[in-house]
Amino acid sequence: DLVALMEDMHYADVAEIIDELDEDEATYIIKLLESDKTSEVLTELDDDVREAILGNLSAKEIAEELGELDTDDAADIVGELPNDIIQEVISEIMDREHARDIVDLLRYDEYTAGGLMAKELVKVKEDWNVLTCVKEMRAQAENVTRVHSIYVVDADDKLMGRLSLKDLLTTSTTTHIKDIYIPKVDRVGVNEKPEEVAKIMSKYDLEAIPVVDEIGRLVGRITIDDIVDVIKEEADKDYQMAAGISQDVEAHDSIWKLTRARLPWLIIGMFGGIGAASIINSFQAVMSEFPILLIFVPLIQATAGNVGVQSSAIMVQGLANDTVKGEIINRLLKEFALGLINGAVIAVIVLLISHFAFQTSYLISATLCIALVTVIIIAALIGTFIPVFLDARGIDPAVATGPFITTGNDIFGILIYFSIAKVVLGI
Amino acid sequence: DLVALMEDMHYADVAEIIDELDEDEATYIIKLLESDKTSEVLTELDDDVREAILGNLSAKEIAEELGELDTDDAADIVGELPNDIIQEVISEIMDREHARDIVDLLRYDEYTAGGLMAKELVKVKEDWNVLTCVKEMRAQAENVTRVHSIYVVDADDKLMGRLSLKDLLTTSTTTHIKDIYIPKVDRVGVNEKPEEVAKIMSKYDLEAIPVVDEIGRLVGRITIDDIVDVIKEEADKDYQMAAGISQDVEAHDSIWKLTRARLPWLIIGMFGGIGAASIINSFQAVMSEFPILLIFVPLIQATAGNVGVQSSAIMVQGLANDTVKGEIINRLLKEFALGLINGAVIAVIVLLISHFAFQTSYLISATLCIALVTVIIIAALIGTFIPVFLDARGIDPAVATGPFITTGNDIFGILIYFSIAKVVLGI
Ligand SMILES: [Mg+2]
Ligand SMILES: [Mg+2]
Ligand SMILES: [Mg+2]
Ligand SMILES: [Mg+2]
Ligand SMILES: [Mg+2]
Ligand SMILES: [Mg+2]
Ligand SMILES: [Mg+2]
Ligand SMILES: [Mg+2]
Ligand SMILES: [Mg+2]
Ligand SMILES: [Mg+2]
Ligand SMILES: [Mg+2]
Ligand SMILES: [Mg+2]
Ligand SMILES: [Mg+2]
Repeated sequence: DLVALMEDMHYADVAEIIDELDEDEATYIIKLLESDKTSEVLTELDDDVREAILGNLSAKEIAEELGELDTDDAADIVGELPNDIIQEVISEIMDREHARDIVDLLRYDEYTAGGLMAKELVKVKEDWNVLTCVKEMRAQAENVTRVHSIYVVDADDKLMGRLSLKDLLTTSTTTHIKDIYIPKVDRVGVNEKPEEVAKIMSKYDLEAIPVVDEIGRLVGRITIDDIVDVIKEEADKDYQMAAGISQDVEAHDSIWKLTRARLPWLIIGMFGGIGAASIINSFQAVMSEFPILLIFVPLIQATAGNVGVQSSAIMVQGLANDTVKGEIINRLLKEFALGLINGAVIAVIVLLISHFAFQTSYLISATLCIALVTVIIIAALIGTFIPVFLDARGIDPAVATGPFITTGNDIFGILIYFSIAKVVLGI
Repeated sequence: DLVALMEDMHYADVAEIIDELDEDEATYIIKLLESDKTSEVLTELDDDVREAILGNLSAKEIAEELGELDTDDAADIVGELPNDIIQEVISEIMDREHARDIVDLLRYDEYTAGGLMAKELVKVKEDWNVLTCVKEMRAQAENVTRVHSIYVVDADDKLMGRLSLKDLLTTSTTTHIKDIYIPKVDRVGVNEKPEEVAKIMSKYDLEAIPVVDEIGRLVGRITIDDIVDVIKEEADKDYQMAAGISQDVEAHDSIWKLTRARLPWLIIGMFGGIGAASIINSFQAVMSEFPILLIFVPLIQATAGNVGVQSSAIMVQGLANDTVKGEIINRLLKEFALGLINGAVIAVIVLLISHFAFQTSYLISATLCIALVTVIIIAALIGTFIPVFLDARGIDPAVATGPFITTGNDIFGILIYFSIAKVVLGI
């Protein structure tokens, strides 16, 4: 039957199925499945589905699930529980050390290395001898799915280095660990940002990295599977920000949630459009004498928007990947040159088209071309400068790309266009 | 001195430094450093820097570097060499089995599982006994940095399952592998797309996955560090596509390369702007009777663009993450409802502002509001439909977001606006 089938499936696949069921069916299945599978299923469910299911379980049942999870996943689930039942759930966890570890992890901000790490790891003290070490390691490894590295700490739990399994196995049992360990190991601090941890682990091809507190004590370990999730979530978030979606949503979310994510940016864009309307309206003389200028407003606006998005996207990525080096002034000069080249090409094409297709006068054509080149250069400079400015102020530069820059450039573009028209056409 | 300092650094850090040097300095340092470090440095360098350095090395020197690399990285480097020296380089590789493995890997397309996999892995045959198995494994493990899993194959090299190290160590030495192996192991085919491999490894939290050919033979293994790179590159590419950047560029690339990446989209956007100009121009009667309508063109255009980008971004992500389920018609109905809600909110705000700030007549206000709601709904439907359409035709839907959709919506938005004006104002 269905349950037997699900027992054979991977927990991530079971979670995908349960995500599609209603609350009662989902709870029913979770109660029927083997306990070691359901705990893993719970970690993979959508937040709201998990919340609904946990609401139907007793504190004791929740505690049982937590007992089977690694401390990082268990702490994440506890962190989502209503405050009034957390204490009861924790007190029902049989393994008291596991419970203590979970409570320790609750202290860390979700968006730090501490919030990502698990307590499961293998560590040995530098003053142990090889024999003690092997015995202790065997006990510790019981709780650790993948050992990856053996960390060496001093009497105060300070991370000193790591131990090569080969060295451990080829040395006499009375040798002390301090004489054979490798005094060098990559590490991150508990307060490090997840993105920074991801950068380090991917750069150095690490599968696990130890986490140390402010005084260098080993407090946990982050594994690559959780960092893969961080990288994907971060990429999704940046992509949504660039598209003007203000909170994490998915296609299957409710209309209400999607509206809340999308409407704010539309309203900002709307005020940009109203601003542009006021600007055009204030150039009444230009409008009435040269109405032909108005038909090129969409061209100016689209060009300003596209250039702004391109140059800001390159900066946002460069900042995220640490490939932006050197002075900002050099970067702006480069964008200036780029804008000049792109602007010249666009202007020549537009010159020909406007002359032959729209029979514009030379002065109108001149206005259009000068405006295009100017708008392209300024949009490129704004698109480059804003992300750097935000980054320097500790704001995620990714918010800059998309509607923000587009809206700003709409207004600037049109202002520049009509101002140039006024000068060139002598109004 | 500098070289001693670099010997102590991680190869990824050395590569970052060398990326900034000129060709002669870079070659000089590569020749001075220990050979086992330089090979790894080479894999991390920028493509053009690596090409320059390899151009200064003899076939024998290149072969030495390749001999120290895993087969996946070695094959990637060989694949970049000029055709006329590949044969010489391969013939200079001392370890002939390593050379054969590299040549095997050259056969696979870069954008497949085969192009990502390495030949380094530990495999045992199902008819071996435990004693043979341990002996053979020890020899194989020499070449494998991280073992991860022991794969079991039959006499024809067909992947049958995997072996638990614990089972191996707790069974008598005369037991046959076929009696103790786990006949279930995640795998991917050689022709699988990298994105698909990434999805599987991240969903099941795998650190390595075996690759099988069309008849199920074990031909290689992909490790998570290379998949982390795939995920990041894929995310960068999608982000750039959404921003209208047509090829992989970085902030520090040359002005020429950046122009080639950016100009194509600007030209497409320019033709969109010219198209919009023609449309406005064709509504001469509207223009001359109600010039006030023209000041709201940027508002219509910005709204159409923002809605289109938002809805297409959600679809592109949903398709990439396999979270888009159910009929396309339901999705379009949902977007219709969303557009109606967002449109109504925007229209009410614009109604108030246009009435009080621009003293528009009721008919002009009505035109504006009806146009906004219509444009929002149609832009949302187009933004949703295009990615699904592209995906169904095997085209990466990520190209849809950004300037493509924006440009299309510019034209549609303005056409709708003036058509509605004609009807409402009875021109
Ligand atoms: Mg259970
Ligand atoms: Mg956590
Ligand atoms: Mg890497
Ligand atoms: Mg690597
Ligand atoms: Mg974990
Ligand atoms: Mg970011
Ligand atoms: Mg060398
Ligand atoms: Mg590189
Ligand atoms: Mg390859
Ligand atoms: Mg995962
Ligand atoms: Mg996981
Ligand atoms: Mg590799
Ligand atoms: Mg993609």
